[in-house]
Amino acid sequence: MPPTPAALEAAIRTAVAASEKVRGTTNPNPPVGAVILDAEGNTVGIGATQPVGGAHAEVMALREAGDRARGGTAVVTLEPCNHHGRTPPCTGALIDAGVAAVYFAVGDPGAEAGGGAATLREAGIETHQGLLEDDVTAGPLRAWLHKQNSGRAHITWKFAASLDGRSSAADGTSQWITGPLARARVHAERAQLDAIVVGTGTVLYDNPWLTARLPSGELADHQPVRIVVGMSDIPETSRILDDAAPTVHIRSRDPHEIVDALSEYTDVLLEGGPKLAGAFLAARRVDRILAYIAPVLLGTGSAALEGAGVGNIEQALRFRRERVETIGQDLLLSLVPADTPTEE
Amino acid sequence: MPPTPAALEAAIRTAVAASEKVRGTTNPNPPVGAVILDAEGNTVGIGATQPVGGAHAEVMALREAGDRARGGTAVVTLEPCNHHGRTPPCTGALIDAGVAAVYFAVGDPGAEAGGGAATLREAGIETHQGLLEDDVTAGPLRAWLHKQNSGRAHITWKFAASLDGRSSAADGTSQWITGPLARARVHAERAQLDAIVVGTGTVLYDNPWLTARLPSGELADHQPVRIVVGMSDIPETSRILDDAAPTVHIRSRDPHEIVDALSEYTDVLLEGGPKLAGAFLAARRVDRILAYIAPVLLGTGSAALEGAGVGNIEQALRFRRERVETIGQDLLLSLVPADTPTEE
Ligand SMILES: NC(=O)c1ccc[n+]([C@@H]2O[C@H](COP(=O)([O-])OP(=O)(O)OC[C@H]3O[C@@H](n4cnc5c(N)ncnc54)[C@H](OP(=O)(O)O)[C@@H]3O)[C@@H](O)[C@H]2O)c1
Ligand SMILES: NC(=O)c1ccc[n+]([C@@H]2O[C@H](COP(=O)([O-])OP(=O)(O)OC[C@H]3O[C@@H](n4cnc5c(N)ncnc54)[C@H](OP(=O)(O)O)[C@@H]3O)[C@@H](O)[C@H]2O)c1
Repeated sequence: MPPTPAALEAAIRTAVAASEKVRGTTNPNPPVGAVILDAEGNTVGIGATQPVGGAHAEVMALREAGDRARGGTAVVTLEPCNHHGRTPPCTGALIDAGVAAVYFAVGDPGAEAGGGAATLREAGIETHQGLLEDDVTAGPLRAWLHKQNSGRAHITWKFAASLDGRSSAADGTSQWITGPLARARVHAERAQLDAIVVGTGTVLYDNPWLTARLPSGELADHQPVRIVVGMSDIPETSRILDDAAPTVHIRSRDPHEIVDALSEYTDVLLEGGPKLAGAFLAARRVDRILAYIAPVLLGTGSAALEGAGVGNIEQALRFRRERVETIGQDLLLSLVPADTPTEE
Repeated sequence: MPPTPAALEAAIRTAVAASEKVRGTTNPNPPVGAVILDAEGNTVGIGATQPVGGAHAEVMALREAGDRARGGTAVVTLEPCNHHGRTPPCTGALIDAGVAAVYFAVGDPGAEAGGGAATLREAGIETHQGLLEDDVTAGPLRAWLHKQNSGRAHITWKFAASLDGRSSAADGTSQWITGPLARARVHAERAQLDAIVVGTGTVLYDNPWLTARLPSGELADHQPVRIVVGMSDIPETSRILDDAAPTVHIRSRDPHEIVDALSEYTDVLLEGGPKLAGAFLAARRVDRILAYIAPVLLGTGSAALEGAGVGNIEQALRFRRERVETIGQDLLLSLVPADTPTEE
């Protein structure tokens, strides 16, 4: 008895949720989630990618399922891998476990690792691609797919500003423009990243920790690498040099060179400030914008963005809205460059 | 047979739509809509407030209904008036027409005109208040209710800006930041207003027409009065001095004095620019903001708002979101001062 569409939908959502939990900890591997349904359609295993060298999602889920996987269905966010890397291929594990069918959201774009579905079919296992494909492509696998396709880390520029585009008041005060829910969201996002990038200006003016903290104030389990960009020295007393997470200084002012230096990461957040963001935007090195816009007006104070290389309206940097969300009183806009093809 | 809840809901929505069509043409009277249902619940009359001195909505709808109103139901956006003004009271017309019931959205806050429902009940007519009350309060009757309560015209500040809060690029070019759908919406809104206000700066820099135009480029039927504020003279060759609509110059820099000078209007749009908006905001004379935010970044260029009197983050002007809407690629946010009580 094959699983019902509703059971498959529930299973892929569970797999997505499992993959979201490991985001930021799997680099250079993709954060994948997997669910095993037994022959009756009951959930008998849930797994997600382990840190590099550890098991893949399918193997984790199969371990939990044990014998109950036989004749069952695997539901995975990414096409199962087919190659011997640091771990044996997942296709082999699925075949050995005796599953009858494999459903996955997104095909593996990598030539080397590709072909997992073909291998499964040759072994007599039904395969289906496309379950919740758009959500997974734009969601947990977004940065990894971007890196597979472009060779570069995926750069999200996040900023918070008033409705009139300012990030601090006339006297420099900025705590707080956005509300507590938006700020908690920023910290939760940080805990799912490989690296956070700021300019030396932000370190010198704001002396931030750039850690991911829980609402209680404690450090989250996973901390992204903190990266400071610019020619100036980082003062030895900077908070960013504490033990909470590694900190790296990239002495460069060339966005292309900086992005090359980030090639060991996959999911990178550019957190500021206005000058560095302007340089990245002018160099077309921002892949996504997350804009937290507060229903607040300041009228004076520092701008959220400076010097993005726009001289006239023809040169305006135009974006396409992916999503708009309300977070308490604030808005969160997710935007991609207007010339980016839609994911479909 | 009393009308079903679904029939009443359809009738009040029809009445609201009828009232929206006359917005901007009824000052100082409220733009009201009315629907008459016959004893079987069929729509037999639709009416809206006529320009001052003309018939009220109920009378227009009763005229269309004729004898079919007898034993039927009147559905009105505002409590029927009870007083002899320039026209006889609507309560008398409803009683004479023999309607069995009157449903209205919003009670009349005016002491003089109030009491319409009581008069109807004394005449043996069933009355019900509250049908779609919140929508009508925040929608077609918003400005009129504000004026009844505060004695002042309702001021909406409308602005269009990039995501980083700029209204033109470094060289002054600004056509276009927002998309065609948002611009068409601005013109449609203008056609429903009593007056549009700008500073002399906008007249001198932009030389706008400030007319309401149809997508074809033709003038809309109704044009708001154009009001220019500031001490400078208006150049004789300004487009704002053409015949398309009346133009008034208020020689003042005091927002309170300016709002007093607007007391003959009810629904007023402040369209710019940044300095005049800053002065109105600092004086707490903005009752609503309509912000058109385009998914565009400029990085330099003039700010959408200047000098709103905010020195530090404690003094930030905070607003409450009433609504957020997507219009093509742009966002339209409707905001009210955070200390405004909710309409309920
Ligand atoms: N709204 C927000 O979300 C947000 C976020 C973060 C910070 N901020 C605010 O931003 C302010 C700091 O402003 P900022 O612009 O100085 O910070 P920044 O952008 O973080 O740092 C600017 C520095 O980045 C370095 N840099 C590297 N490549 C560059 C390039 N191509 N062009 C220009 N600079 C480059 C330069 O350092 P060297 O001179 O050392 O080479 C430059 O001085 C703070 O007040 C902070 O509050 C706002
Ligand atoms: N983003 C948008 O939606 C939007 C809308 C309209 C205009 N704009 C832009 O705004 C620019 C014009 O800027 P602006 O600020 O000069 O325009 P403005 O605000 O329309 O006009 C400023 C003038 O208003 C008068 N004014 C009256 N009361 C005032 C007060 N309390 N404080 C200050 N001024 C007062 C002053 O004129 P006197 O000196 O004559 O007394 C002042 O020079 C144009 O480039 C235009 O493109 C943008």
